[in-house]
Amino acid sequence: MTVRDHFLKKAWYAAALSSEIEGTALFPRKILGTSVLIYRLEDGTAVAVHDRCPHRFAPLSLGKRIGDEVACPYHALRFNAQGQCTHNPHGSGHIPQAAKVASFPIVERYGFLWIWMDETEPDLSLLPDYSPLENGPDTAIGWTYMNLPVNYELIIDNVMDLSHIDHVHGEIITTRGKLSPIVPQIRETDKTVSARWEWSQQPAMMIFASFLPQPDAEARQYFDITWSAPANIQLTVAATQEPVGFANAVDQYDLHTCTPADEFNTHYFFATRRNHVENDAEYNAQKIAGMHAAFEDEDGPLVKAVQDEMGSADFFSLNPVLMSNDVAPVKVRKLLDKMIREERIASANAPTTK
Amino acid sequence: MTVRDHFLKKAWYAAALSSEIEGTALFPRKILGTSVLIYRLEDGTAVAVHDRCPHRFAPLSLGKRIGDEVACPYHALRFNAQGQCTHNPHGSGHIPQAAKVASFPIVERYGFLWIWMDETEPDLSLLPDYSPLENGPDTAIGWTYMNLPVNYELIIDNVMDLSHIDHVHGEIITTRGKLSPIVPQIRETDKTVSARWEWSQQPAMMIFASFLPQPDAEARQYFDITWSAPANIQLTVAATQEPVGFANAVDQYDLHTCTPADEFNTHYFFATRRNHVENDAEYNAQKIAGMHAAFEDEDGPLVKAVQDEMGSADFFSLNPVLMSNDVAPVKVRKLLDKMIREERIASANAPTTK
Amino acid sequence: MTVRDHFLKKAWYAAALSSEIEGTALFPRKILGTSVLIYRLEDGTAVAVHDRCPHRFAPLSLGKRIGDEVACPYHALRFNAQGQCTHNPHGSGHIPQAAKVASFPIVERYGFLWIWMDETEPDLSLLPDYSPLENGPDTAIGWTYMNLPVNYELIIDNVMDLSHIDHVHGEIITTRGKLSPIVPQIRETDKTVSARWEWSQQPAMMIFASFLPQPDAEARQYFDITWSAPANIQLTVAATQEPVGFANAVDQYDLHTCTPADEFNTHYFFATRRNHVENDAEYNAQKIAGMHAAFEDEDGPLVKAVQDEMGSADFFSLNPVLMSNDVAPVKVRKLLDKMIREERIASANAPTTK
Repeated sequence: MTVRDHFLKKAWYAAALSSEIEGTALFPRKILGTSVLIYRLEDGTAVAVHDRCPHRFAPLSLGKRIGDEVACPYHALRFNAQGQCTHNPHGSGHIPQAAKVASFPIVERYGFLWIWMDETEPDLSLLPDYSPLENGPDTAIGWTYMNLPVNYELIIDNVMDLSHIDHVHGEIITTRGKLSPIVPQIRETDKTVSARWEWSQQPAMMIFASFLPQPDAEARQYFDITWSAPANIQLTVAATQEPVGFANAVDQYDLHTCTPADEFNTHYFFATRRNHVENDAEYNAQKIAGMHAAFEDEDGPLVKAVQDEMGSADFFSLNPVLMSNDVAPVKVRKLLDKMIREERIASANAPTTK
Repeated sequence: MTVRDHFLKKAWYAAALSSEIEGTALFPRKILGTSVLIYRLEDGTAVAVHDRCPHRFAPLSLGKRIGDEVACPYHALRFNAQGQCTHNPHGSGHIPQAAKVASFPIVERYGFLWIWMDETEPDLSLLPDYSPLENGPDTAIGWTYMNLPVNYELIIDNVMDLSHIDHVHGEIITTRGKLSPIVPQIRETDKTVSARWEWSQQPAMMIFASFLPQPDAEARQYFDITWSAPANIQLTVAATQEPVGFANAVDQYDLHTCTPADEFNTHYFFATRRNHVENDAEYNAQKIAGMHAAFEDEDGPLVKAVQDEMGSADFFSLNPVLMSNDVAPVKVRKLLDKMIREERIASANAPTTK
Repeated sequence: MTVRDHFLKKAWYAAALSSEIEGTALFPRKILGTSVLIYRLEDGTAVAVHDRCPHRFAPLSLGKRIGDEVACPYHALRFNAQGQCTHNPHGSGHIPQAAKVASFPIVERYGFLWIWMDETEPDLSLLPDYSPLENGPDTAIGWTYMNLPVNYELIIDNVMDLSHIDHVHGEIITTRGKLSPIVPQIRETDKTVSARWEWSQQPAMMIFASFLPQPDAEARQYFDITWSAPANIQLTVAATQEPVGFANAVDQYDLHTCTPADEFNTHYFFATRRNHVENDAEYNAQKIAGMHAAFEDEDGPLVKAVQDEMGSADFFSLNPVLMSNDVAPVKVRKLLDKMIREERIASANAPTTK
């Protein structure tokens, strides 16, 4: 049994950070196995089209911008943002009916460009609300991006079982062995899986300790995470030294989101907004660099080693020994699998649209 | 549908430039998926044998020259240029009947070594006449070689549709957008496909302009190309400022020829003879270096990007949008495909010769 | 026909040199396609377990030693040397029945760690007696290790036909063309294949000449080799200038042993004990470095070139031309093949043990 081409199609995937698509650049990225060209119109609107000229299959991203259009680098067929060929310099200049490329709806929110890879009408209600990322100054939010040579579900597994922080991560976000003994509370809807850990540790995680009244003293903390299809995990983490509740806690509101380049390569995006030292641009830069390093240097090598061991085998086919800490990631795998299967059945039964 | 093992067998392929096989060197090259050893006899005659000892499959090209013979590097079986084992240092010295390697006929012409990879008798009439390459001094001809990680038909496509020069190439051979509007004249025989473009541009291509009476003025130019099986394209390009004809034109007579290493790697050879500044060795060297750079830096990355997009898919299976500029390359693909199919049918019906 | 997954399972393979597993290190090695973790208990005993946590498949070799146990780097499940999970830091700490990894018996002898990869009881009688390696001072024995990207049977072929020394090797172990004319004497049992060459050469191999009474004079030499399953070749080589026998010869007693990492990668181990200059540590170091260099620089490139030519094809399917020097290696290939086939039949008929 092998890893299937296991992608939900009717969904919003993070195609890029907003900051990755600058000026007039033609930005190529492989998404769900498809070459995609992302760029911004002159008014700043981000657009995406199939990065493959229908003539001789050259990547349009190697071509030239002509206003809001792109000319193929090979024979200069020109396409607009809707994917329609607008200019053919050859012969009579007649534009063949088939001279078009797929265009993919893009929505820009929360510092990300979200892409709809399916051929059906995009459904904006399927993009979760991460508006808390937008509440606050620019110096209190950071974004980062990594490319990992692993199947995306291994990254979801990683984040859905935060007990790994006890064992994998260093001082910056250490949980000092406190998470593993906890059986996290699970909450479910038909479209989401959530988990919550609450604990005390002394001192608090390094990212929070110095912003608490008594940096060296014990603090109460929680993690609360919610997975939404296809590969988004919203994570809130907080610390307080008040006896009850987290109303005045030092916290951060994060989004982890994964986009498969293909079955064995994943674009891993991360955003984090904090509610403290909100106006310190230098701290802000250090903070996101530290978080990036934790993923790249601590999670990354492990998840890659797991991928190497698994090869192309399906996770469940290897008979994993599952424990109390696996409830949330397993529920996500099963719910995502169910959504994918249902989508395929629906798609097989649907009247052809193209 | 995938790229087939799509090679014509009864044909002459360029195995190497004459200059690549020097002195007593044992030169290995993969041709149509087969390891070939090319070397020169002491009298200078080039020969080719299967680069695989029939004993334990070591490459003979790692072995030692002994006069006109080659000793295997592993256990020193010795073979002559006909592929016959001539010496066995083991035991009684008996030479097993099967101790031979295939030898491949080589013909040296036009500065190339042409190889016949089929097991049948070589047919010299199938080697096109490129004798104009031989007419003139050594300082007016250049050869070059590139290895490209692409299917060879993508290179043929590139050269058969010269409209790409408008869009891909820089000043050295620019056609200033003049080719694309032209529907080239096509000529066909049962074994060749030709195309011709005629146009005016101002100034002429950089390679010609300074040799014309008025370098900055408009010039009339033409390209005339003829494809012959398996992968030869003879190209003539000329410029003149006379009102009629090209009798006194500044021109060059070129040969592009491709030899598949395998389905996804190609040896790309090029020769060019010009009719101007024929005695300037320094200009000659600069000229071929410039042509090489144009292929390597301008065509190469594009054709590789196309190969990456196509993967192992067959060209037509991807439903290319074809236009007036594609007539010649498509005719070549179809004629070559027909020749390969006919060869296979004939071969399947032929009495076994080995 | 392709190279099968051609491994004898009920056999002792060299997993490592004793010296490779130092102190508290966690040493990973791929053996017969399986990831193996090798380490030493605090009392020095070497142990081996499957290098794959049964929870989420992280390599235990990236984890932490805790006394004689190893904690997984990902979620800290802890395993003892028998492969049993001894500690689960998660939730209630309950240890699931399935939380165990395969452990592999290890026997340390002759400076090697020998591993039994089969699930059945290890059979020590199947480990050949190489005790002569142990007779003498530490300054008269050397070990070395190479990783070669080839199928292991190609290395066995290499050593079983020592005539290649005439052609492949330089002065250090040259046989000056004397071996090839000899048809070696073959001896066989139902589990071993032996070959012996005797000859005279002048001077003797460089490794022996200076220890003979007349270094520049002719010497009588012999090679005697014995293959035992799965991939061990014991080799003795000696030189004497006495007229009869080898009683007072200068000699060395070697072991070549191969362990497949997988079908196309092999761990190649070598040990050599000599009976001369036994107390010179500096000479000892130079000697093993010289032998290593001969394998790495002279055999290695050739065997790799053979592998490249063969690809995944089975040796006999390529119709090798076999000669008198091939009797021993061919007998080994056929005997090993027979043993593997018999093992498979027996295994298919055996009652299930797990």
